[in-house]
Amino acid sequence: MAFHIARSPTEYGHELAEAIVQVKSTLKLCSQCLAFTPKDPCVICSDTRRDQATICVVEKPADMNAIEQAGAFKGVYHILHGVLSPLDGIEPGDLKVQELINRLRRQPVSEVIIATNPTVEGEATATYIAQEIKQLGVRLTRIASGIPLGGEVEYTSAPTLALALKSRREL
Amino acid sequence: MAFHIARSPTEYGHELAEAIVQVKSTLKLCSQCLAFTPKDPCVICSDTRRDQATICVVEKPADMNAIEQAGAFKGVYHILHGVLSPLDGIEPGDLKVQELINRLRRQPVSEVIIATNPTVEGEATATYIAQEIKQLGVRLTRIASGIPLGGEVEYTSAPTLALALKSRREL
Repeated sequence: MAFHIARSPTEYGHELAEAIVQVKSTLKLCSQCLAFTPKDPCVICSDTRRDQATICVVEKPADMNAIEQAGAFKGVYHILHGVLSPLDGIEPGDLKVQELINRLRRQPVSEVIIATNPTVEGEATATYIAQEIKQLGVRLTRIASGIPLGGEVEYTSAPTLALALKSRREL
Repeated sequence: MAFHIARSPTEYGHELAEAIVQVKSTLKLCSQCLAFTPKDPCVICSDTRRDQATICVVEKPADMNAIEQAGAFKGVYHILHGVLSPLDGIEPGDLKVQELINRLRRQPVSEVIIATNPTVEGEATATYIAQEIKQLGVRLTRIASGIPLGGEVEYTSAPTLALALKSRREL
């Protein structure tokens, strides 16, 4: 990015600087899902055609974008803005979990889908959230892990293969 | 391989040629699972500590090796030696499906796990096999597809994300 700016006309630098200031003064967090948005609630949370009773919990805004682009989810989101990572000093209080709990107490929710990454940190975070919201009696689900579409058994890692066999589905 | 042979001593070439002839005269297909083996039945099919009533159906010997190395399956295998691929002229009769059906009729089997790749050809083959053996009343399962372990939602393909959401599991 530094080289790109150094190479560009002065005019471009001024415009970019202004756009950054503009974005920082306009963008805020949606009071419901905590996505970055210029208006609160965000376009997704205020869309009445979406299922407001199904909440997909993701680590960060980019994950929400990826799921939106996949076009296969018609509910709403909750963004944690991080995952548990004790080595990096990120603890439960650093994530937006209390906001999720408040939201579940405030509005009727039929299902919470935990879509954190299937990494060590993402799984730990999923387990933590599940424990925290279990007593609220909401249906709790986790996105599927396994061999990705187009992938091959031969080139799949041993842990993924083991899980794909363990979580096989009925045909 | 050609360059490797060209670079090697003459002696090596002779040894390699002999080994290839040897392998081709010694290796045969296991009469049960159709794996390559020097003795029939193969070490897996003749291992009484393995669950002979759970059959994992794979496309090719390399897939069986990958699952064995993952160490997460204690049943036996059935190797199709191919997948349906009409464009390449590979049709049902070219796969070892009739051998699977004969095997299911011959011995008591409690479950058939279809572990063909989650590719277009692998899925078509899984659907075909399911249709063919459904009337035999055996429990039929399919290995899980989804985000691989260690993978990230942000970098997962749209079809895989859509499937990971659709086949989410209860927590």
